[in-house]
Amino acid sequence: MLINCVAYRNGQKIAEPPLTEISDFVSQPGTFVWVALKDASSDELQLMKEEFGLHELAVEDAHHGHQRPKVEEYGDSIFAVIHLVEIVEGDIHLGEVDIFVGRNYVLSVRNRSQQNFLGVRARCEREQHLLRLGSGFVFYALIDAIVDRYFPIVDALETELEEIEEQIFARGSARSNIERLYALKRKVQVLKHAVAPLLDAVGKLQGGGRVPLPCADMQVYFRDVYDHLTRINTSVDAIRDTINTAMQVNLSMVTIEEGEVNKRLAAWAGIFAVATAFAGIWGMNFEVMPELKWQYGYPAALLLIAVACGILYWRFRKSGWL
Amino acid sequence: MLINCVAYRNGQKIAEPPLTEISDFVSQPGTFVWVALKDASSDELQLMKEEFGLHELAVEDAHHGHQRPKVEEYGDSIFAVIHLVEIVEGDIHLGEVDIFVGRNYVLSVRNRSQQNFLGVRARCEREQHLLRLGSGFVFYALIDAIVDRYFPIVDALETELEEIEEQIFARGSARSNIERLYALKRKVQVLKHAVAPLLDAVGKLQGGGRVPLPCADMQVYFRDVYDHLTRINTSVDAIRDTINTAMQVNLSMVTIEEGEVNKRLAAWAGIFAVATAFAGIWGMNFEVMPELKWQYGYPAALLLIAVACGILYWRFRKSGWL
Amino acid sequence: MLINCVAYRNGQKIAEPPLTEISDFVSQPGTFVWVALKDASSDELQLMKEEFGLHELAVEDAHHGHQRPKVEEYGDSIFAVIHLVEIVEGDIHLGEVDIFVGRNYVLSVRNRSQQNFLGVRARCEREQHLLRLGSGFVFYALIDAIVDRYFPIVDALETELEEIEEQIFARGSARSNIERLYALKRKVQVLKHAVAPLLDAVGKLQGGGRVPLPCADMQVYFRDVYDHLTRINTSVDAIRDTINTAMQVNLSMVTIEEGEVNKRLAAWAGIFAVATAFAGIWGMNFEVMPELKWQYGYPAALLLIAVACGILYWRFRKSGWL
Amino acid sequence: MLINCVAYRNGQKIAEPPLTEISDFVSQPGTFVWVALKDASSDELQLMKEEFGLHELAVEDAHHGHQRPKVEEYGDSIFAVIHLVEIVEGDIHLGEVDIFVGRNYVLSVRNRSQQNFLGVRARCEREQHLLRLGSGFVFYALIDAIVDRYFPIVDALETELEEIEEQIFARGSARSNIERLYALKRKVQVLKHAVAPLLDAVGKLQGGGRVPLPCADMQVYFRDVYDHLTRINTSVDAIRDTINTAMQVNLSMVTIEEGEVNKRLAAWAGIFAVATAFAGIWGMNFEVMPELKWQYGYPAALLLIAVACGILYWRFRKSGWL
Amino acid sequence: MLINCVAYRNGQKIAEPPLTEISDFVSQPGTFVWVALKDASSDELQLMKEEFGLHELAVEDAHHGHQRPKVEEYGDSIFAVIHLVEIVEGDIHLGEVDIFVGRNYVLSVRNRSQQNFLGVRARCEREQHLLRLGSGFVFYALIDAIVDRYFPIVDALETELEEIEEQIFARGSARSNIERLYALKRKVQVLKHAVAPLLDAVGKLQGGGRVPLPCADMQVYFRDVYDHLTRINTSVDAIRDTINTAMQVNLSMVTIEEGEVNKRLAAWAGIFAVATAFAGIWGMNFEVMPELKWQYGYPAALLLIAVACGILYWRFRKSGWL
Repeated sequence: MLINCVAYRNGQKIAEPPLTEISDFVSQPGTFVWVALKDASSDELQLMKEEFGLHELAVEDAHHGHQRPKVEEYGDSIFAVIHLVEIVEGDIHLGEVDIFVGRNYVLSVRNRSQQNFLGVRARCEREQHLLRLGSGFVFYALIDAIVDRYFPIVDALETELEEIEEQIFARGSARSNIERLYALKRKVQVLKHAVAPLLDAVGKLQGGGRVPLPCADMQVYFRDVYDHLTRINTSVDAIRDTINTAMQVNLSMVTIEEGEVNKRLAAWAGIFAVATAFAGIWGMNFEVMPELKWQYGYPAALLLIAVACGILYWRFRKSGWL
Repeated sequence: MLINCVAYRNGQKIAEPPLTEISDFVSQPGTFVWVALKDASSDELQLMKEEFGLHELAVEDAHHGHQRPKVEEYGDSIFAVIHLVEIVEGDIHLGEVDIFVGRNYVLSVRNRSQQNFLGVRARCEREQHLLRLGSGFVFYALIDAIVDRYFPIVDALETELEEIEEQIFARGSARSNIERLYALKRKVQVLKHAVAPLLDAVGKLQGGGRVPLPCADMQVYFRDVYDHLTRINTSVDAIRDTINTAMQVNLSMVTIEEGEVNKRLAAWAGIFAVATAFAGIWGMNFEVMPELKWQYGYPAALLLIAVACGILYWRFRKSGWL
Repeated sequence: MLINCVAYRNGQKIAEPPLTEISDFVSQPGTFVWVALKDASSDELQLMKEEFGLHELAVEDAHHGHQRPKVEEYGDSIFAVIHLVEIVEGDIHLGEVDIFVGRNYVLSVRNRSQQNFLGVRARCEREQHLLRLGSGFVFYALIDAIVDRYFPIVDALETELEEIEEQIFARGSARSNIERLYALKRKVQVLKHAVAPLLDAVGKLQGGGRVPLPCADMQVYFRDVYDHLTRINTSVDAIRDTINTAMQVNLSMVTIEEGEVNKRLAAWAGIFAVATAFAGIWGMNFEVMPELKWQYGYPAALLLIAVACGILYWRFRKSGWL
Repeated sequence: MLINCVAYRNGQKIAEPPLTEISDFVSQPGTFVWVALKDASSDELQLMKEEFGLHELAVEDAHHGHQRPKVEEYGDSIFAVIHLVEIVEGDIHLGEVDIFVGRNYVLSVRNRSQQNFLGVRARCEREQHLLRLGSGFVFYALIDAIVDRYFPIVDALETELEEIEEQIFARGSARSNIERLYALKRKVQVLKHAVAPLLDAVGKLQGGGRVPLPCADMQVYFRDVYDHLTRINTSVDAIRDTINTAMQVNLSMVTIEEGEVNKRLAAWAGIFAVATAFAGIWGMNFEVMPELKWQYGYPAALLLIAVACGILYWRFRKSGWL
Repeated sequence: MLINCVAYRNGQKIAEPPLTEISDFVSQPGTFVWVALKDASSDELQLMKEEFGLHELAVEDAHHGHQRPKVEEYGDSIFAVIHLVEIVEGDIHLGEVDIFVGRNYVLSVRNRSQQNFLGVRARCEREQHLLRLGSGFVFYALIDAIVDRYFPIVDALETELEEIEEQIFARGSARSNIERLYALKRKVQVLKHAVAPLLDAVGKLQGGGRVPLPCADMQVYFRDVYDHLTRINTSVDAIRDTINTAMQVNLSMVTIEEGEVNKRLAAWAGIFAVATAFAGIWGMNFEVMPELKWQYGYPAALLLIAVACGILYWRFRKSGWL
């Protein structure tokens, strides 16, 4: 589905050509065309392939979808796959945007996601001195916008982790803690798989070695994106690390709590066992058991039992079992 | 066992020579011979060695089998070992294909596997403009086909993992979970050992450094295979990671469940212990126990016992033990 | 908020210009201006950007704050972010200082921290032969001062760890140990995230490859900082490693203690169960139970019970259960 | 102790000189001497040092023994240490062979091992076209033979692991499993320490960078050894990984089994506690307990107790505890 | 404190100058001065700094002490920090030696350690052909001596580990095992921190890249030290790995033992519970309980109880619980 298709020259919009006339604009010097598609059909991709002269393997990847994040060079053009991550009602949702960048075109194909990039286009059109830098800047602006949207995801996961942490030393919450930690770990894994390969890919655009043509002279900008990604990646790793520790701690807490409960139960069981044993002895049927005949034998027996139990209770209390 | 042996020129089939005449075709310029063997005998390999001039060490490896995946250069030719992975009735099954690639020949020897590559040959013969690229393209097409067959294996393992995950927080399934996780881990290990070394090997074919001769100018294609392998490898690592976490979670669940059961049992034991202790006391044989003589002593005693047990029950219930 | 703004020439203070006249001094050869801000407002940063000609992306980072530690080059100038770590009442507190370094200026912006760098300025002004080295030396002096302040943090964390370690084999302290270890681990993580990226960043300044312009000829100094950071990093890793081991040991101790308690309880339960069983037998109502009629039946029975319990007690004692 | 000492020219044996005349042969062009010693004495090593002009540090290493596997260059010659691994009655046994290789000599010193290399010499003398390659080929043949002897060790360890795995889900075998896994892990560690450093060392001989002189033009052969070592190393790592998992699983099984036993015991305890409680009630001595006077009170009571116990039994059975 | 100060020329001692005249000797060609200090005071270091022209940062490091092991270049000279590790009465003790090496001087400053290097000096003076190699050889000889002293430490730790391992499957030793393993791990950590950074540092001296001036042409010697360090490092890693496994195994053993004890206790508890239940039934006060009137009712009852308990005992025995 076409979102929009605009031709720019010198940082200014000059036309909104229909898809079939794109190649006319692409061939004009100093002009570049920026097309945005959403859940593109096979026909649309085929048309784009012809208009822009895209590489077959790249178009196939965009058609199949479900690629891992990457930035690949095909001659003078770039094909990038980036994950779009959203949290919808507590569940993490994974979309994908495929970006083709050539010297004078940018084509973005967004799949399975409600996020749009109208804001990116608006910002680019506002800042004409930057848009004049051409397709490389648009590519940067798209990646930057996507990466910026990772931050609230990280924040949400960190908040969730903190909520769990508050419960981790609470009694009786072990089962729900472990379930929540496990669910959180799966979400973090999704984000990690979106971020880590992109970090590697953007690392190559930020300089050091040779930089693909459309991104030449943009290293400072991509380094900025790289820096953001590094920050996200570090946070994600910290969350993962903390989840692991929290799981281990949770297990320890379960064991400790069990031990406490066991002691308490055993203490009470001991107290009643003593009472029962005493009662059993005076319940024996020997003929000659003088105390049974005493006037105050019964209350004395009850008292003795109570005192024995009391001493036990007091000792258990003192040693912290009750 | 010979599957087929075909000579191609300019992307078109020109002959199906018998094995012993291969060398005549190999020596013709612009021609290449593509031979497919299955569970090749020692004699067949010897014949191939002579016809194609294969290196002794490579032939020895193909003869012994059970190699790890690799791509080796012998002068101008390549010797590759790739694992074929199938899931047969829940068990993972490991086959092997050995591929010899020279400037004008491709020899594939398939061992211990029911998978065949007839589809690859058909696809190559269909796409003549690609087959014209020569033996390097056939090599790519074979690897691509094998790697594509890893995807359903990954899917199957992921599905199996998800089935286990659904049981992981269910009560009473700890033993079967741990057995299934262990079995799954062994399967994943087999796939990992098929994928990881191949990833390294294909990484060298996709460019960056020097590329072996038959694969020159094919980097874009091998990068595509490399990308697929990376995706598979990432999935395999994610499965392994999740299995480890699931095992740990499973152990936690066992401990938690045990704790719950213990509390429950202890609670009931406590209730009965109280009843027994009371009954024991009134079972004592003291002569002066006035309540024993009361008209309603017995029902009162029963009531008292019931009330005591009831209070205990209510307290245990409130603290979540029952 | 402006802390101070001083112009230096030949290692000596020559003026304290107002912020708006900085550019006049910056343009004079052999002169450099050192400005220190604290929690700079947006306007102040904008002014600095104009006076020093700072890069937009760097100023944006300084404005947003919450960056990870890094040292970035923008043309001939450097932008560095360094974390300030304090321990306030047992909690770890994270501040940040952003440093812009050009050939003839140093601008430090300190955020969310009570630590100041007046001492650094005083030391630099004292050692004129070093201050003559220019902005690069000031940059070194700032980093060196910040890194030196990490050492007491490491010491505090090590002390805390040692206190926990002293409790780790003590009975009954498992719950507090695990809580303290967990809290300590979070603190160590904060320090780790301050140190590890800085280590990488300073590693690039200490030579080997190309060194950013303002730091040229300062490699020996930055190597010294790098060495300090490596020491801190090693200590932090050792603490983390020990925490992990201590957690594992703590879990073992819990399990061992539980086992000991269980044995003890079971031993006592056994002793009373024996008494109860004997008593129960003589409490049976059979008509012909000759021992019930004996003169000393009752004391004999009590003796027997006592002896049985005594033997049990002695055996449990011997096997270390009691 | 001298095993044998032979001089070769053009791939053919020309003499068996006494040790003291070796230097005469070494100096002849196109000739090389191959000496095999076993548990060499200090004097023998001193003699060899003089005859071949070996480096002092290398001879010292050979004299002390207990080196880790390595391949070191001393000028134009090579000094290699390789571990010999045998399994003797279930225990792993570690020997060592030190090999000195020069342009025209090979000296192997075998220590603390019953394995000999007579087969290697026989094979080399049989394949004269290879022996003609000189000392480098002999060096390859020795390493190849040693590495080949690692395979049965790996197989034995894998078999042992599989035997343990068959027991891992069996009830009541936890203690022996953990003991066997621990013992196996120690054995695997010995093999790992023999293989891993050798892998690195042979990696340098198989090309890529500069190759030590005696091994020049032998890269293809050393790559073959390297490939074998990689296979062994991968297997060893897989065994280690599986042992770790198996230990974890074993612990889980212990906990699960304990939980099952606990439930079972608690169930029976509950059933008897109910019977005891009922009996205790009718053992009370209240005067007015009408049911005690009933004709069929006793059988009714027994029936009631039986029914109560039966219901409990049935419920426990249903919930899988019995 | 000065240990000794000697000037050498051509491998021979020529004088023992007082510290203040060192610079006269240092300036003579072909001469080098070797000074050994112990726990040097601030003044001594200042004097050395002037006599040898040491770098300020290096002297500061030596003054502060507590550096991590390293080898740093300052122009043409080297500054090295190496840890001295001793085991005193079972505790590990950490000293430090700082070595300054220039073209014609060696200064070693030993801190907090009883180990001395008189043996090194004696060996050097004995082997004049090596001492002639100059300050680089002395530097090697010192490092070599220190590294050689690590071996007995490793042996002591291995012995301690083996002693623990012998106890690891013994019953009732879990608590002391875990305490000893924890203490051992701390000791190993100290050694690891002494060895690992030194390994990296010496790795740079053994060749490959550029080698600091005083060590030029000494690569073979430093490779020997490097090899020793690698061996030590590997041993240390193996010990650490084994400690981790042993801790895990110990936890398993605790759990297994607990399970065994639990079963045993539960079995005995069951046997007594049966006896108590039977006794309770015949202790009921029903009027019509015919068996109570039988002549041999009592012995029959005792027999029945004994048989019931016997059967239970036999069954528990068979299933291995008793």
